[in-house]
Amino acid sequence: MAAEEDIIFSAAINLMSAFAFLLAFAVLRIQPVNDRVYFPKWYLKGTRASPRKCGPVVRNFVNLDIRTYIRFLNWMPAALHMPQPELIDHAGLDSAVYIRIYLLGLKIFVPIALLAFAVLVPINWTGGSLQHIEGITFNDIDKMSISNIPSGSPKLWAHIAMTYLASFWTLYALYTEYGIVSRLRLEFLATEKRRPDQFTVLVRNVPPDNDETVSEHVEHFFCVNHPDNYLLHQVVYNANMLASLVEEKKSLQNWLTYYQTVFERKPSQRPKTKTGFWGLWGETVDAIDYYTSEIKNLSEREAEEREKVLSDPNAIIPAAFVSFKTRWGAAVCAQTQQSNNPTIWLTEWAPEPRDVFWNSLAIPYVELNIRKLLMAAAFFFLTFFFMIPIAFVQSLASIEGIEKVFPFLTPVIEKDAVKAFIQGFLPGMVLKLFLANVPKILMAMSKAEGVTSLSSLERSSAAKYHLFLLVNVFLGSIIAGAAFQQLDKFLNQAPAEIPKTIGVAIPIKATFFISFIMVDGWAAIAAEILRLSPLIMFHIKDAFLVKTDKDRQEAMDPGSITFSIAEPRIQLYFLLGLVYAVITPIILPFIIVFFALAYLVFRHQIINVYDQKYESGAGFWPDVHRRIIIGLVISQVQLMGLMSTKNVAKSGPVILVLPVLTIWFHKFCTGRFESAFVKFPLQEAKIKDTLEKATEPNLNLRIYLGDAYVHPVFKGRGQFEAPVSVDEEENDPLVATRRIPRREIAAQTPNPNLL
Amino acid sequence: MAAEEDIIFSAAINLMSAFAFLLAFAVLRIQPVNDRVYFPKWYLKGTRASPRKCGPVVRNFVNLDIRTYIRFLNWMPAALHMPQPELIDHAGLDSAVYIRIYLLGLKIFVPIALLAFAVLVPINWTGGSLQHIEGITFNDIDKMSISNIPSGSPKLWAHIAMTYLASFWTLYALYTEYGIVSRLRLEFLATEKRRPDQFTVLVRNVPPDNDETVSEHVEHFFCVNHPDNYLLHQVVYNANMLASLVEEKKSLQNWLTYYQTVFERKPSQRPKTKTGFWGLWGETVDAIDYYTSEIKNLSEREAEEREKVLSDPNAIIPAAFVSFKTRWGAAVCAQTQQSNNPTIWLTEWAPEPRDVFWNSLAIPYVELNIRKLLMAAAFFFLTFFFMIPIAFVQSLASIEGIEKVFPFLTPVIEKDAVKAFIQGFLPGMVLKLFLANVPKILMAMSKAEGVTSLSSLERSSAAKYHLFLLVNVFLGSIIAGAAFQQLDKFLNQAPAEIPKTIGVAIPIKATFFISFIMVDGWAAIAAEILRLSPLIMFHIKDAFLVKTDKDRQEAMDPGSITFSIAEPRIQLYFLLGLVYAVITPIILPFIIVFFALAYLVFRHQIINVYDQKYESGAGFWPDVHRRIIIGLVISQVQLMGLMSTKNVAKSGPVILVLPVLTIWFHKFCTGRFESAFVKFPLQEAKIKDTLEKATEPNLNLRIYLGDAYVHPVFKGRGQFEAPVSVDEEENDPLVATRRIPRREIAAQTPNPNLL
Repeated sequence: MAAEEDIIFSAAINLMSAFAFLLAFAVLRIQPVNDRVYFPKWYLKGTRASPRKCGPVVRNFVNLDIRTYIRFLNWMPAALHMPQPELIDHAGLDSAVYIRIYLLGLKIFVPIALLAFAVLVPINWTGGSLQHIEGITFNDIDKMSISNIPSGSPKLWAHIAMTYLASFWTLYALYTEYGIVSRLRLEFLATEKRRPDQFTVLVRNVPPDNDETVSEHVEHFFCVNHPDNYLLHQVVYNANMLASLVEEKKSLQNWLTYYQTVFERKPSQRPKTKTGFWGLWGETVDAIDYYTSEIKNLSEREAEEREKVLSDPNAIIPAAFVSFKTRWGAAVCAQTQQSNNPTIWLTEWAPEPRDVFWNSLAIPYVELNIRKLLMAAAFFFLTFFFMIPIAFVQSLASIEGIEKVFPFLTPVIEKDAVKAFIQGFLPGMVLKLFLANVPKILMAMSKAEGVTSLSSLERSSAAKYHLFLLVNVFLGSIIAGAAFQQLDKFLNQAPAEIPKTIGVAIPIKATFFISFIMVDGWAAIAAEILRLSPLIMFHIKDAFLVKTDKDRQEAMDPGSITFSIAEPRIQLYFLLGLVYAVITPIILPFIIVFFALAYLVFRHQIINVYDQKYESGAGFWPDVHRRIIIGLVISQVQLMGLMSTKNVAKSGPVILVLPVLTIWFHKFCTGRFESAFVKFPLQEAKIKDTLEKATEPNLNLRIYLGDAYVHPVFKGRGQFEAPVSVDEEENDPLVATRRIPRREIAAQTPNPNLL
Repeated sequence: MAAEEDIIFSAAINLMSAFAFLLAFAVLRIQPVNDRVYFPKWYLKGTRASPRKCGPVVRNFVNLDIRTYIRFLNWMPAALHMPQPELIDHAGLDSAVYIRIYLLGLKIFVPIALLAFAVLVPINWTGGSLQHIEGITFNDIDKMSISNIPSGSPKLWAHIAMTYLASFWTLYALYTEYGIVSRLRLEFLATEKRRPDQFTVLVRNVPPDNDETVSEHVEHFFCVNHPDNYLLHQVVYNANMLASLVEEKKSLQNWLTYYQTVFERKPSQRPKTKTGFWGLWGETVDAIDYYTSEIKNLSEREAEEREKVLSDPNAIIPAAFVSFKTRWGAAVCAQTQQSNNPTIWLTEWAPEPRDVFWNSLAIPYVELNIRKLLMAAAFFFLTFFFMIPIAFVQSLASIEGIEKVFPFLTPVIEKDAVKAFIQGFLPGMVLKLFLANVPKILMAMSKAEGVTSLSSLERSSAAKYHLFLLVNVFLGSIIAGAAFQQLDKFLNQAPAEIPKTIGVAIPIKATFFISFIMVDGWAAIAAEILRLSPLIMFHIKDAFLVKTDKDRQEAMDPGSITFSIAEPRIQLYFLLGLVYAVITPIILPFIIVFFALAYLVFRHQIINVYDQKYESGAGFWPDVHRRIIIGLVISQVQLMGLMSTKNVAKSGPVILVLPVLTIWFHKFCTGRFESAFVKFPLQEAKIKDTLEKATEPNLNLRIYLGDAYVHPVFKGRGQFEAPVSVDEEENDPLVATRRIPRREIAAQTPNPNLL
């Protein structure tokens, strides 16, 4: 256990490194040459032009104005300046609500910290239990923790009372925040401009029909079942192959540009390349000629594939985007069941066009269920047994392992320096490499599950990552040993023992988690603002690929908040704060600093840097809420375990009330607020429809929605004619049969005079 | 442990008593005097008239035709005769599907029993483990069970294979049955005649409005948000007080009729009664005069209350039944969310008018949640601590207890006969009395939860009873001790130990459960057909209250299947069958006899006796399915525990696959079939609307739906005018303000020409 000097030293180191990052940022930020790295958002918005255009050349690259260096921290107040409505307008609701998570952390933990330091720390300090035990080393942090209270002391009731206060305060904060976010979401949806997804429903699992194409079948079904509301539909093409060709061509184009730039700078010598993998081996050829011909080949294949997709009926997926005349009609269709068989004609709100995950629109119902089962099993094994493959790779990466597989390397390996490197770094590197790739693996698993939008993909991946971190970082740090050993332990231990095991281990681990917060939290947040990797990438691209301003625009990588990775990590800090609030309150200031710093940095980033790929209207908030509730329940249960080892009579049932109430509160909140994130109320839809009808009576929705849901590879190419509209059909002899059902419908439409 | 002779003896006794019941039924059934007890369903249908009308007097009461006595078992083939479609038409889908539960039992267990007897019983018999142990008493039942296989024997793999076969067979049977029932339900709903609930939605939590009454507010809201579909609505009056007055009056009327009959038979003496509770004490008065004046008083109070309810705006509950012009409109409204705030304007399908549970329509959202929490806590305590109040009452009912509370009774109690009674019977009677009342307590708890229909009330109560039986009968019989002691044991035991504890105890308890099946199952089913209590009640009423044929009609008590009690009990037999299928297959024939007998008896009862109070269209099937799945998972998990004590290497993971697959299968089935029981697809609604429009173009729905959802106490009294219709409003100066929003709506209605 680290003494308090170690902690102070570590805190100082970490504070200094964080400060160094911030200083580097402050300096780099004001160099005109980095402007596009640190303010890409404004370029994308068109409100900022390249600063290189005017003044002496050097000024274009380096900032020589001394005064700006003095005010190097002025980004902080600037970041806080923008009021929330403007922020939502500027960066979108997703981002604005995302930073509210950090704010919620401050709201929860600042009052709890104040109370804990006013009440619990003095009580713990005067507990005097540790002094009486001979031969035990303890430090001031331990003296401030619950460990210093003797077993069975009535002082422990203060901790129980504090748990009650902290829990109720957290629940209150959660409740108000859920209310605020759902209000923001509803306001956002209400004031939002017309968007194609408001009128559109995604229909999946269109049943096959022998007589009709998918497109005809969809049209007939919705003409019959939503006669007053149906407007048009857009079939989905299986263009995954085409999309990958387009991707490949883009990459070849980049190489061609690179070699052309090289050639322009050094016209004496034509650049060469090798035809093999990554230009590393194979025949040496003239690079520009090679890539030009490759691009030509690919263009032909692309055109061929494009032709094939558009003409082949098998390339049409049994799914469609169906648009309605009114938002009301779309809301009705999205929320109701269409057919007897609930596995066909599945309707759901269409995601925003940018948000559609095209790859998984065609998966049938049974396959979807099997995929989910397999992924659940895979996730279970990944979480609990992930140490096994790592141990295997580590054994391969050991000296004996390498010598066995590559005997010819033996003389190299046996050198001292190499040996030390293999023994000292390789196992750790393997672990780090794996851990860094966990989010990617989880994202791949979520993709295999077959969700239809990028936002739900991110949410599903975040849910998995949260569990993974909970088991492998939180529990893994508290109870030594790999996760599958913990699992074995838990299965062979009485349920009442588990909270005890955790409860006893938690106070001991306080100093470890303080270091963790500083290294993983503070330093990572400070590094976040520096954007080292986009900075380097931009300058490389700028040097070799950029020719026009448009190229420069494309070379910018504003990035976006990776919700699937960042949010589960925040949850770890909520969990630590809630767990330690009563036990070792000294951890709270570190968490508060983390939340404050993160709030500041991310507020700056969403204003100046990030450009979100899609907008889900804060659809992730129910997940955030649920995970904080999970953290709260864990904190309550482990306290129960700890108290039972401290021999506080009747504390069990008293604390047991809390998790029951917390879970009930969660159900209550879900009923109260969640539908704002899942459904779209008819009243809202009607109001928007009515307003629109009044302000824009001549709007032609058919044109507006025409190609909103075309696969991105077809977009803006003009090849894709607008879908056949109902009126245009009149002149189409091929679809004359379609008239019959529609006439039937007209006859079926209820005549209000008869009622 | 009972020897096999005991079992055979017990089986003989039980078979004979069951046979005696059946014989008594066969004789009583053909007596004309009992006709209305054993065939009330046909009287209610109007296809059977009183048999007393013709022939000599004695023939009206006793059947003297010897030939009918010879064919005394001919009700059995008769019960099986009616084909299923006719049965559904005759008794309703609820009843027809209810008896399919027994049929499902046969489908699952007959093949499993055949296979088990062909394979497992020989294997067990030759296991020879029990012979090798000295000093242990065992019987042939044990020899046929898994106990006879020595630990670690490879023969146990046969049992694991058998578990796989049994599980897959059960899942297959469940899947096909779910498919059949959902198809039956959809067909039933599709061929159903026009019913008010097809057009109607129950709206709860109408928000208060200062300017408008509930009725106006509902009308405006639906005129705006469902302009094309809204037809009319019916507000709900809080008539609970009035309903209880009506009930009271009916009971007084019965007493008056009774005394009038007594007086008619013995005109010399006017009957007397006492004014106190149940006529047991108080002043003695002339009975006929007393009841006549009491009824007069009550009639006045009733009229007053009726007036008050109809005129007082506070008697209107913020809930309403909203009817639509088409089934499509109702389906849309029931499945969508109306308002931003998901706790107001809650819409759900209206239950059938008979099925409405009027008392809980007015409960606001927050209160509903709190009630659910309280009831969940109460149910937890009832289940796990129900022995505590019983032990308390039993201690009061002991000799010391009675002497303490009522010292004056000491001399009476100290008599030997009384003492023996108190010591021997009273504690058991207290327990029996409590157990018999558990379903009533659970039903009261479900009522307090605030569900809106009788069918969901029964389902909620059944779910509780199922858990109660699982904990207190199944686990309680296997692990001795009260439920709260079990809970304590489970909490302080490793999770991996729990299946072991159960797994080891289960083979030992086989003989106990065989007796249980015979006493609780066979005898109860045979008693069911005898209808002893309705038989006696009918003859008492017939003697004292019946004057006209209408009275006799009312004196009949056809009863109905009490789903909330009967279904959880069936589940116990499914559970026992699944658990013992592999361990002690000898139990299976007993279960098969139970299912066969029950199927026969209940088929007879639903054809000839029961008259269901409402029709939910087999809405309970998802619950039945889920509970059988629970039983299957329990059986798999306990086998895992048993195998781990039998030292079968690697059996754990092999069996673990089964519960995972079973739970996944349940999720799959839920997605595949459940919506047929929860939602009403738009396609179906449209087809029915279209058909109706074609066949009955002149139908006036407004009149048809007019007073469908009037509280039963107002029904058929003419006091209740039809709700103000949209057209009638024109002449109503008071509601002139309402015109404005409707004109707005007209302006807002989308003009198709513009699109």
